[in-house]
Amino acid sequence: MECVVAVDVGGTFMKGGLVRDGAILYAERRPTPRTEGPAAVIAAISAFVTELAAPREGLRPTSVGLAVPGLVTPTHAVFSAAFGWRDVPAAAFTDVSLPVVLGHDVRSAGAAELAYGAARAEPDVLYLPIGTGIAGALALDGALYGGAAGWAGQIGHVPVHPDGLPCACGQRGCLAAYASASSIAARCGESSAEAVLSRTDEVARRVWDEAVEALALALATATLLLDPALVVIGGGLAQAGEALVGPLRTRLAARLAFRRPPRVEVSALGPQAGLLGAALLATTA
Amino acid sequence: MECVVAVDVGGTFMKGGLVRDGAILYAERRPTPRTEGPAAVIAAISAFVTELAAPREGLRPTSVGLAVPGLVTPTHAVFSAAFGWRDVPAAAFTDVSLPVVLGHDVRSAGAAELAYGAARAEPDVLYLPIGTGIAGALALDGALYGGAAGWAGQIGHVPVHPDGLPCACGQRGCLAAYASASSIAARCGESSAEAVLSRTDEVARRVWDEAVEALALALATATLLLDPALVVIGGGLAQAGEALVGPLRTRLAARLAFRRPPRVEVSALGPQAGLLGAALLATTA
Repeated sequence: MECVVAVDVGGTFMKGGLVRDGAILYAERRPTPRTEGPAAVIAAISAFVTELAAPREGLRPTSVGLAVPGLVTPTHAVFSAAFGWRDVPAAAFTDVSLPVVLGHDVRSAGAAELAYGAARAEPDVLYLPIGTGIAGALALDGALYGGAAGWAGQIGHVPVHPDGLPCACGQRGCLAAYASASSIAARCGESSAEAVLSRTDEVARRVWDEAVEALALALATATLLLDPALVVIGGGLAQAGEALVGPLRTRLAARLAFRRPPRVEVSALGPQAGLLGAALLATTA
Repeated sequence: MECVVAVDVGGTFMKGGLVRDGAILYAERRPTPRTEGPAAVIAAISAFVTELAAPREGLRPTSVGLAVPGLVTPTHAVFSAAFGWRDVPAAAFTDVSLPVVLGHDVRSAGAAELAYGAARAEPDVLYLPIGTGIAGALALDGALYGGAAGWAGQIGHVPVHPDGLPCACGQRGCLAAYASASSIAARCGESSAEAVLSRTDEVARRVWDEAVEALALALATATLLLDPALVVIGGGLAQAGEALVGPLRTRLAARLAFRRPPRVEVSALGPQAGLLGAALLATTA
């Protein structure tokens, strides 16, 4: 049976697998050796692809899709601050003799949401995975929009509270400084946002409320600018489910004066969105 | 010579004219009788169109373009809070036997900027006319984007300072509460933003600085979300020229950590953008 090799390259983990028509036939997770430098990450991806593409009973990989962060075209990883990449050609990521297609990690995951997830049948969607950071993918008129230079969707660094909390990017008051899973955890001295959610003390409640309010402010702005029909929250924080989207819907409506808010849903694909998105890239090879 | 009838219907004035290929052959301005109710405005537009379409030496109007505020399709003014319209068909706006096309006022002006103005040859542009209010038109991949329901571009009401100055919309901290020409004037007890600019006292300087900073915050957010190559400032406030865009460019760059700002230019078409945009609508009849 024909299938594709898909790898979603995150800052901490790489998720790889074999996929056919949106069905994950095999999946595996490996650490991303980010601290070992740009070449080490490329070598690790290449080794991962080689093993995923190795002969398996009844499965025949026909192409490779790699979802990576930064500025990316189908043929080049143009720039990645996270990995220190500049103009890495797609062929550098594999030793196997299969066609390889690169794509932007968040936009690829957004494409999977459009194809298989909560955003199916909605042409105008904002997809917002929340994890270590916060990124966004914009589906406009049914197509993913990358902006003039491929940098669209950087919603994690919009200034929701000008001159507010410091952010790792160097600015203050960014959405991510309040609402990324890592910021929520760090502000409460925890190792995860789930740990914060399970606490009932005043500090944890205030940090969570400020995270939801920051998201409501950023989504109010995105709604006014872009008028999406649907917002899909993905990434690790989406696992909070109703504890997140319930108050978020209320606060978003409260921040909008003269228009109804868009629907806000949790991703149905969860962390698989990235892998399925990488597989969609492979199908364009 | 063939030409089109164009009317740009603003909240205070209607600008009408005869246009051919982006050249204004005749232009006239009339007050909009907004306080007299929904039907009075429609009747005034109809009378204006009839007179514009009347026989003139050597000019033969072939169609009518009307740029109006609110939610609008080519055949209907679906909703306008400013005029109290609901589902007004295009034919209701004229008695003449010419085809009529309706369009959104700000997006039509944005189309003119794309066709004739500063945005020519840039596919990804944010056009921001600043006057009594602040609106926006988004050109994405060379096409104007209206959002899921036609409400995109409402940048005047994005919350730049959450819980800041009260806005007429009922929210607080909206961009328009700081940076619309009318807000700038009202905060200084003046009748126009030009009067504020000509003052050198501390209050006037602070109000102007806060207006520019609010614009920088909103544009930083729009830049991070949409990655436009160019921002075009139009409307009455654009007449401030370098006094506006000079400090705006500096403050926008200061609000962006990891990416360069888009170019920021003043509209070359100025207040004619709306009329030329209405004429472009007519050419689609």
